Amino acid sequence: MAPGVNGKKVSPEEEHPVKVFGLVSRDSSGHLSPFSFSRRNTGDNDVAIKILYCGICHSDLHSLKNEWRNTVYPIVPGHEIAGVVAEVGSKVQKFKVGDKVGVGCMVNSCQSCDNCGQGFENYCPQIILTYNSIDKDGSMTYGGYSNMVVVDQNYVIRFPENLPLDKGAPLLCAGITVYSPMKYHGLNEPGKHLGVIGLGGLGHVAVKFGKAFGMKVTVISSSPAKEKEAIERLGADAFLVSTKPEQMQAAINSMDGIINTVSASHAILPYFPLLKCTGKIIILGLPEKPFEVPAFSLVMGGKSLGGSCIGGIKDTQEMLDFAGKHNITADIELIGADYVNKALERLLKADVRYRLVIDIANTLTAA
Amino acid sequence: MAPGVNGKKVSPEEEHPVKVFGLVSRDSSGHLSPFSFSRRNTGDNDVAIKILYCGICHSDLHSLKNEWRNTVYPIVPGHEIAGVVAEVGSKVQKFKVGDKVGVGCMVNSCQSCDNCGQGFENYCPQIILTYNSIDKDGSMTYGGYSNMVVVDQNYVIRFPENLPLDKGAPLLCAGITVYSPMKYHGLNEPGKHLGVIGLGGLGHVAVKFGKAFGMKVTVISSSPAKEKEAIERLGADAFLVSTKPEQMQAAINSMDGIINTVSASHAILPYFPLLKCTGKIIILGLPEKPFEVPAFSLVMGGKSLGGSCIGGIKDTQEMLDFAGKHNITADIELIGADYVNKALERLLKADVRYRLVIDIANTLTAA
Repeated sequence: MAPGVNGKKVSPEEEHPVKVFGLVSRDSSGHLSPFSFSRRNTGDNDVAIKILYCGICHSDLHSLKNEWRNTVYPIVPGHEIAGVVAEVGSKVQKFKVGDKVGVGCMVNSCQSCDNCGQGFENYCPQIILTYNSIDKDGSMTYGGYSNMVVVDQNYVIRFPENLPLDKGAPLLCAGITVYSPMKYHGLNEPGKHLGVIGLGGLGHVAVKFGKAFGMKVTVISSSPAKEKEAIERLGADAFLVSTKPEQMQAAINSMDGIINTVSASHAILPYFPLLKCTGKIIILGLPEKPFEVPAFSLVMGGKSLGGSCIGGIKDTQEMLDFAGKHNITADIELIGADYVNKALERLLKADVRYRLVIDIANTLTAA
Repeated sequence: MAPGVNGKKVSPEEEHPVKVFGLVSRDSSGHLSPFSFSRRNTGDNDVAIKILYCGICHSDLHSLKNEWRNTVYPIVPGHEIAGVVAEVGSKVQKFKVGDKVGVGCMVNSCQSCDNCGQGFENYCPQIILTYNSIDKDGSMTYGGYSNMVVVDQNYVIRFPENLPLDKGAPLLCAGITVYSPMKYHGLNEPGKHLGVIGLGGLGHVAVKFGKAFGMKVTVISSSPAKEKEAIERLGADAFLVSTKPEQMQAAINSMDGIINTVSASHAILPYFPLLKCTGKIIILGLPEKPFEVPAFSLVMGGKSLGGSCIGGIKDTQEMLDFAGKHNITADIELIGADYVNKALERLLKADVRYRLVIDIANTLTAA
């Protein structure tokens, strides 16, 4: 049994008054099955959201299988949530019933630390993640593989009218995860040259944002087979096969910055020469092995290796508004809730172009 | 015999018309002895400088002993040059005879690439260093351990009237090397908290610039004995002994950025927790062993590891003007030219507080 409200051990089915249902894993097999549980009533500052779609992020897989060794079972994953407002609390003025909204990786934070004050709730030491996190009342948070969620209004994102909810859902995690570092490291300016390492859920939206910012975008991948789709389907300007030294050599001193989306352990050294002076490589994944970084690679040319983790709430809204304006969506495959275990198997094999999204409203049913 | 003018092999004594003298090493012993050589006539855009003082930088030692495996002998080191203008070319309007001027690590660059255009001559692929570099005419450059130098006016820095030439000379390398990354990484704002790793030639001026910018400055060192001088003599606000975990732990999440001046191989991991979110560690030294950087240290908190190498000409002038305004000088020990070999031995043992400067005009004599 999970930690319950205020430390009192009660079942997820009974700890809150509102009955909901979703998909749960009860152990590190990660196998998902139907689950009845409960959510809190809509508080004064809360928005209750009827979930229509939820993207499947690679983090869901890590958490389901306890690969980060912090999973509390039972777990209901999902942090790329899109839906419509079903109810609002008495103090909620920003949203009304029927509004199209989304929720990303977090549902709360302390709202008072320096990071929160600067719009970096994503770096708040007391961040409350959308699932597998301890909520303010002591209960565990459960994510978007479910029919309904109740979220503090400050952590709810408004969908632009024209942005489809299914293809937009993955932007709440994958989108902001690439948008935020592009913004804060100046990799959002027309005419600049962006490199994107890895063409998956994150990489493919990084290409789209880069092009919408007016940049030249080069995809760098170990898979030559991805060249056609990178250029023809996603609009990248160029493609480098990272294992071909002559291609890498031809591109030295050409990029203002590189967004590195690769999660597997890999050498970072070969990418520094691609950067112009004062260029930056920003890593978004968490490879197990440390990077080996010779001082020479950084000092000669004033280069940097940085990291970034999702993004703040204000930036998430800005990102979604920008996506609406430029018609940026994720390339998705819409699946039924009964396909989710098969979907996770395919995700593990990287057999996805580029994001799987669960059609919650039409296919998820009560246990 | 070194490469001569336009590929023609002529001796350093005879390749140019102007007879000068200095201190030379002829092999990787690095032992310096008197040397007669020659410099070019003052060209239309040149400034001839009577050298009064020249700082001894740790790079001089590396070069003298061929530790970077690129030394061409005979070598005359010295790139912290301060003196007075002795002659100006016909097209020189910025300087006149008698002006107090300085020359740092470079005496020319291509003046046409993107880096030069952006004021980053220090990152120009065709940078011509003050010594041990091939000049535009094909001859080797010889540095400031000499009585006179001829330099393109664009690479000559004006000394503020109040800044003493002896104590100001080291700023031409040590000063700009810390000032430039502080400027470009936002580590020059009042109220911010700067960490400085290592208290030597670079570190001690980093502390002074940090305080002049209105920052809180904490020195981080493995030598507890340096605490008193860091705080009482240099004005640092706090001191951390890097080998004391309880001191390091007490300072986590407190610094906006860290200037890392250490050249010996060392672990970088322990310093990341000291940074606030989005904080940066900027390395200035070139340790032999690569840094091991876990992705986690960068991603969680949006942190960066960057490098920086000296600084551009415009920034060097800005730095020296700022130093004049805030009375920032290096803490030096003025030595005679006959003491230079002994001085290099002491530098090797880090037995210097904090910069040795050669009193060229009063002690350097012809061979």
